[in-house]
Formats: sequence, structure tokens, C-alpha cells
Amino acid sequence: MEKITSKQNTKVKEWAKLKTKKGRSQSGNYLLEGWHLVHEAILNHEPIQAILVTETELNNIDLPKTYEVVIITDDIAKHIASTVTPQGVFAVLRTPTATPLTAETLKGAWLMLDQVQDPGNIGTMVRTADAAGFEGVIFGTGASSRYTPKVVRSMQGSQFHIKLIDADLNEVIDLFTAHNLPVYGTELNPEAKPFRAIDPQPNFGLIMGNEGNGMSAELLKKTTANLYIPIKGQAESLNVAVAAGVIMFQLLQ
Amino acid sequence: MEKITSKQNTKVKEWAKLKTKKGRSQSGNYLLEGWHLVHEAILNHEPIQAILVTETELNNIDLPKTYEVVIITDDIAKHIASTVTPQGVFAVLRTPTATPLTAETLKGAWLMLDQVQDPGNIGTMVRTADAAGFEGVIFGTGASSRYTPKVVRSMQGSQFHIKLIDADLNEVIDLFTAHNLPVYGTELNPEAKPFRAIDPQPNFGLIMGNEGNGMSAELLKKTTANLYIPIKGQAESLNVAVAAGVIMFQLLQ
Repeated sequence: MEKITSKQNTKVKEWAKLKTKKGRSQSGNYLLEGWHLVHEAILNHEPIQAILVTETELNNIDLPKTYEVVIITDDIAKHIASTVTPQGVFAVLRTPTATPLTAETLKGAWLMLDQVQDPGNIGTMVRTADAAGFEGVIFGTGASSRYTPKVVRSMQGSQFHIKLIDADLNEVIDLFTAHNLPVYGTELNPEAKPFRAIDPQPNFGLIMGNEGNGMSAELLKKTTANLYIPIKGQAESLNVAVAAGVIMFQLLQ
Repeated sequence: MEKITSKQNTKVKEWAKLKTKKGRSQSGNYLLEGWHLVHEAILNHEPIQAILVTETELNNIDLPKTYEVVIITDDIAKHIASTVTPQGVFAVLRTPTATPLTAETLKGAWLMLDQVQDPGNIGTMVRTADAAGFEGVIFGTGASSRYTPKVVRSMQGSQFHIKLIDADLNEVIDLFTAHNLPVYGTELNPEAKPFRAIDPQPNFGLIMGNEGNGMSAELLKKTTANLYIPIKGQAESLNVAVAAGVIMFQLLQ
């Protein structure tokens, strides 16, 4: 097993760069942190490029022999980690090339993110879509990257379970509409329908918008119906990930 | 209007301490950041001790004359803020003394937090409980403080709308039970009922447990029923705030 002790090592520099968008797009890789996620990547036969582990952590986990394993120091672990107290095990993963959405892959329920910004919200929505039995999540232009450290942490491995696609939501809605599949918007406005007015169903799209500004007017015009969650108290709105969860578990039962 | 320009000023030191638990409990105050929350505190006639504002921000907002306003520098704003780019307006608020739960105040739906740790989750659950029309949130022993900067940010002002109570959840369940009011647990185990098996109702308690370890076995034994959200995909679990949202909007309609 290779052992690296210097932060100046070229590989270490490459791994540290995976925290940035530029580093991820140049290498085509992203970083998983912690045994829980690394183990899940192994079980799911994900394209693992290397596993990086501290000496201490190596004794705690059961690593298959088939992977390139590099022993790193605690200092290097801290340097490449995006958490304050890293667990001492990482995997460098190939960023998957998303297959485009076509008429053949359209079936099922799809969550669509229109300019959602907060990485924690994005990751949590992917995880919730997985739990609710959705087919996948479509990232519209303007949504934060799905491989930032915080998104990856919040997804909790759900990127291995459901499809994640980048697409122009305008074109996606057109595709759904051409196949007579409904797409629901979630903009708070007087014409919106309470979300329970729509019957649970197997095939549809659901758009969640930006935390502050909601979804784009252009997309909203194209939706089959616009849904809202009736607020009973004095809160002005719900957190976008909570709202997505409430509607997803209602529409797909 | 008083004007403070030095970070060494005693008041500034006091405000900076409000980021810590010790500082909050010694002074009995906590800090609100940003005009959105400060404005809401004003509208709700909350016990504002002082409003702190930078010169730039003072020109952007419409402050009532009734409050003690202190002009601060951008440097001081950064020093007392817990966000990276503070908005330049703060309010020092008296931490309210929570009224204990009694037979008379028992009506309505109550969310109970058993050792929930993440401040973002806690704040989001308070905001969601408000939106769902809950009467209040009960913080069991072991739940994170509700006035840490991150909890305050995530609550989005919902602490002004619903009751927040600290209590021993063991005693709270006994009180509910003595009044024939159901308390639902949310521990994933084989005897749990799917959450939709329970009819929506106006008066009940709902317990959410710790992010990693769930709720305590002792409390679980005392519950009327234990509910779970059926997972259809491969995700192992839901984020606790999302799960709370899904169940709250189902049980209280």
C-alpha cells in the first residue's frame, strides 16, 4: 500500500482541490468522506478511483483488497476534509456522466430543482426523493452543483440509488407535456391548489424553486397545476426541503 | 444615539458573548441578526433590549423611535455576527421564561424533541410546527439550546408565534396520558404503524428523536403508538426535520 506523509504531495494537492468546483470539473472526480458513505459506494460498485485512509482508521474498517488504497496522515486527512473532525477515510469517485432524459426513461416520479441554492437543502431533497420512491432528481440550470462536499454529505449515499440528471427544465417540461405527464409547480400564489387536491399518482414531475425567490415565472406558466401547502400558523413559509418532503410523500403513495 | 467604534467596548464584548451558551445564560439575552428577524421582533412587541445597527444599514430601514439604538461599525458587526456576511442590524432580546405545561395549556398539537442535536434541524422543526398550526414545541433534556445563532436563524421568527417549553418528556407524557391525550413516537422498529394509519386529530403529542440514535427506549414505552414513514427507495432514513414535517402535516389537517 502506498503511504503519503506530505501535504505537498501532488496527489494530496489534487484531493484537496476536489472541494472546489474547478477541481472537480478538471479531474472529473469528487470526494466521499466517512466510512458510512465509502462503504455504501463499495457495496454499490461505484467507480472508486482510490480509497484514502489513516493508519488508525485502517484498523477499524474492513476494506476489500480490490481497491487502490493510500495510507495518509491525520494531518492530510484534515487538509482534504471539509468537516472539522474528519473520520479518516475517504474515497475518490468518478463523477458519473448523467444520461439525458428521453421518452423511454420518463416513467415514475421526478423531482425538479429550479435554482435551489442551499447545498444542505439540495442534498436533503435528493435523500428524501430516494426515500419516497422517486425515479430521480433533475437539476435545472442555476441549481448548485451536486458534488460539493455539503451536498454529498446531505445526500447520504442517495446519489447511488436514484438518477440525477442535469437538464434545461423548460425542455424537460415540454417532454413531460408531450407525453401527457403532469408537472406540478410549487409557487405561492392565489391560483395555487392545496396539495391534497391532487390525487396520488405514479408518473409526474414536481418542481421546487429557489429558497428566496421561488420558481421562475416562465416555468410556472408551463406547469399542469401549481400546488401549495396550506399554512395554518404565522410562519411565512416552509423550508424548501421540508415542503418538498411533505408534497413528495403525498403525491407518491 | 450612542455610537460605538471599538471592539474593546464592554457592550460589544457582552454582545459577542451571546454566541456562547455561557454568555446567553449569564446575561439572559440572545441575539437576532438581520432586518427580517429584527423587524418581526418589533412587530410582535418582543422584549428588545437594544437594536444595534451600522450607519449604512440605518439608512435602509425604518426603526421606531421607541428603542435604544446603538450605531456600530462594520467591524463590530462582523465581530458579533455569526454569519460570514452580516446584514448590519441586530437586536438583543430577552430570553423568554417558558411557562410550564399544565392541564389548562395542554390543548392542541405539540411537537416534542428528544435529544435532537443539529441546530438547523431544531430551528427548521420549530418553523414547520408553526406553519402546520402546532400549539408549541417541547424541548426535552438533551435537546440543543434553542437560542444558539443557528437555531435562531432556522426558526425564522417562529419563536414569536408558538410556545417553546423546556421540560422532562417523561413528565410531559404522563401529563398527556393522565388527560387521555395520545403521544406518538417515531422510532423505526417492527411494531411501528405507518403514519397514515392514524387519523388526523386536533390534540396530541409527537416525539422526534436524535438524528443518529432515535428516541429513548424509556419514552417509547410510554407512547400511545409508534409511527413510521414507509420508505420506498433505498435510503436508510429521512432527515429528522423532513420526517417531522411529513408527519405533522398529516396528523394535523
